[in-house]
Amino acid sequence: MPVRLDAQDPRFAKGFEGLLHAKRETSEDVQALVAGVIDDVRKRGDAALIDYTARWDRQTLTPVTLRISQEEVDAAVGKCSEELLRALDTAAERIESFHRLQVPETTDYRDAQGVRLGARWTAVGAAGLYVPGGTASYPSSVLMNALPARVAGVERIVMVVPTPDGAINPLVLAAAKRCGITEIYRIGGAQAVAALAYGTATIAPVDKIVGPGNAFVAAAKRLVYGTVGIDSIAGPSEILVVADNRNDPAWIAMDLLSQAEHDTSAQSILITDDPAFADAVATAVDRHLETLPRAAIAGESWREHGAIIVVRDLLAESPALIDRLAPEHLELAVEDPDALAAKVRNAGAIFLGRYTPEAIGDYVAGPNHVLPTARSARFSSGLNVLDFMKRTTFVACDAESVAAIGPAAVTLARSEGLDAHALSVALRLPGGGQG
Amino acid sequence: MPVRLDAQDPRFAKGFEGLLHAKRETSEDVQALVAGVIDDVRKRGDAALIDYTARWDRQTLTPVTLRISQEEVDAAVGKCSEELLRALDTAAERIESFHRLQVPETTDYRDAQGVRLGARWTAVGAAGLYVPGGTASYPSSVLMNALPARVAGVERIVMVVPTPDGAINPLVLAAAKRCGITEIYRIGGAQAVAALAYGTATIAPVDKIVGPGNAFVAAAKRLVYGTVGIDSIAGPSEILVVADNRNDPAWIAMDLLSQAEHDTSAQSILITDDPAFADAVATAVDRHLETLPRAAIAGESWREHGAIIVVRDLLAESPALIDRLAPEHLELAVEDPDALAAKVRNAGAIFLGRYTPEAIGDYVAGPNHVLPTARSARFSSGLNVLDFMKRTTFVACDAESVAAIGPAAVTLARSEGLDAHALSVALRLPGGGQG
Repeated sequence: MPVRLDAQDPRFAKGFEGLLHAKRETSEDVQALVAGVIDDVRKRGDAALIDYTARWDRQTLTPVTLRISQEEVDAAVGKCSEELLRALDTAAERIESFHRLQVPETTDYRDAQGVRLGARWTAVGAAGLYVPGGTASYPSSVLMNALPARVAGVERIVMVVPTPDGAINPLVLAAAKRCGITEIYRIGGAQAVAALAYGTATIAPVDKIVGPGNAFVAAAKRLVYGTVGIDSIAGPSEILVVADNRNDPAWIAMDLLSQAEHDTSAQSILITDDPAFADAVATAVDRHLETLPRAAIAGESWREHGAIIVVRDLLAESPALIDRLAPEHLELAVEDPDALAAKVRNAGAIFLGRYTPEAIGDYVAGPNHVLPTARSARFSSGLNVLDFMKRTTFVACDAESVAAIGPAAVTLARSEGLDAHALSVALRLPGGGQG
Repeated sequence: MPVRLDAQDPRFAKGFEGLLHAKRETSEDVQALVAGVIDDVRKRGDAALIDYTARWDRQTLTPVTLRISQEEVDAAVGKCSEELLRALDTAAERIESFHRLQVPETTDYRDAQGVRLGARWTAVGAAGLYVPGGTASYPSSVLMNALPARVAGVERIVMVVPTPDGAINPLVLAAAKRCGITEIYRIGGAQAVAALAYGTATIAPVDKIVGPGNAFVAAAKRLVYGTVGIDSIAGPSEILVVADNRNDPAWIAMDLLSQAEHDTSAQSILITDDPAFADAVATAVDRHLETLPRAAIAGESWREHGAIIVVRDLLAESPALIDRLAPEHLELAVEDPDALAAKVRNAGAIFLGRYTPEAIGDYVAGPNHVLPTARSARFSSGLNVLDFMKRTTFVACDAESVAAIGPAAVTLARSEGLDAHALSVALRLPGGGQG
């Protein structure tokens, strides 16, 4: 059964702490194995990729067939229904529109001392997108990872996707095509991450790698970080639903299950101010589980990690709980969701009101569905255009403006014992070097 | 002697690759030791901090004296000269002004389908600033790390600084005071990072840790990453100066040395289009080294890691070389620095023109001096206000707008085999759940 906590209960603080610090993930220690694979790809390049793909995906490849051809992509798109392709296009358009507003502007100005100052943003040169194979191969993830890169202006976007036994989700290739990705390799695992980071004869290296993956992929991303940039390593998904008793319990129950069906280690939490509503939602969850196709996964997640918290006053009490949980997804199914949202600091994405189920944000709302998990919304943001850009600041002094601000630099540099710093400024001051 | 490469030379590509991949850092493997220290601080809290500080800093502390009192701070400020405090204030004002322009705005709009969308930014709740002790205890670093947090609106900024044998740089405390930091602890090393990440009875945990440190501090930051956010792990400093022959060789030589004097593993590179100017700079470097106080460090850095590259045409040839080197600092001492800068993608910060030595940016220009090293300017940016904020996206549908965009979400969710996702949307559509 999911944990049930009552904020009035004197044991509440202890129970809530338990919820905060419960470990949901069993981390496999695959680092040594992964380090070996990376070394091997660095040394043997394509040959290593071909060997690992034969061993783990049972595919016999050559340097030429590592790449999925445009003909294969087009054939896959031909297999997708019109309805699916239209839905994909709706999603892509909305995601692009939302992300376009994130493109930052250059600043360039002259200050009162005559110093020209500013910052400009440039896209990373090349980005690599990891797409898992098999059942976790989600076309929506291709859109969410590739479109921000596209909007940022990344010139080269490379996709890798393993095709165990030759299987691939045609809609994943359709999503890649919709995002303008033409460079796709049928490789996966740590070997694919290594190829993206270090390059091989066939695959040129990238500057940044994003996208979800299993424990091997996550370990490989950690190991190549520094050589390339990476996105954050995603943990299991979470939802926190704050709901008053004027919601349909069946709707709220389904929202909780939409998170739970991802993974047995996913977490769904309900905060409400009415114990009877809490009971009604719990009952509705059980009823939905009777028919839900992924009931085995969702049920285990709900029983092991689910929680229902009852408070007296949602507006007064829930913001502090939300901020400590720092949920990936926060659904506010209350009368005045804005009033509550205004009091929240930590959440990856907020879904406001009774008609905004979290799942709408997984596909078509527009904001990204790659969001900070495991309480990292305290200090990090969902994937966005800035993740594919970097800021370069600039300064320009002339003889007058360096004379205005330089002496303070000379004083500070000397106090830090950095005389070449001081002299490199002082040489440019009137009387050069004697200052 | 520094490497000298001529872009006309058939062996140039190989020499340049060597420069790119030369390892300058000897990484100490301190991870096991550091992991032990972190565990100990998690278990024993203040007692562990007191033990490690007694052992490594030879300071006998109590939970009360872990903290540096306001009286001690005021006494330290009293020891600083008026000139130094004025220079500090000039730097702080300019850094604040520049960073204030980085504060992002909330977006909140309704799209054509009636969906309300947006993103808002909030500051992290608490930030920890690591300041090294001893000779690397730089007041300018306090300003550069603390002021972006301040401008972001971080409510609690905590500073830790080891005081080996009781020694502390008074100007470091003056800088902390100037930044409004009142919570300062005299601890350092991995134990200080652990205290910031996990908290003790005396020190409440923070959400993000920034600031430079030695190998132990860097390893500790890597290990606590995930529990808290961290800034990037800085490698040794680099400068790339692009200069034509209309510069004073003595100025350019001093700029190269200002980087080299940081650390024997720092790197200074000159690109010029005139072999005679290259010679003149090399001679000027040697002459400066005769009198520079930190000549031992700067000389070793220059001999071991310095490089001079001669090309024919600076505007045509240097941008590709710059982008591959992706320097932390890029100085463009040429007639039309903007034309050259426009062709550059990868650099942490650019210093434009003959009167803008890099050192002006270390102290008073305004942009941050915490910049991406080791070629990471390919995918990352200098420290800025956004590093202390996070973006929360939001969506609000009503019955009409969910009806407009919901069906595409249902289609995609079903195709991904996520039926609870599909149903949580379908329940809200007209005809609820039958859609």
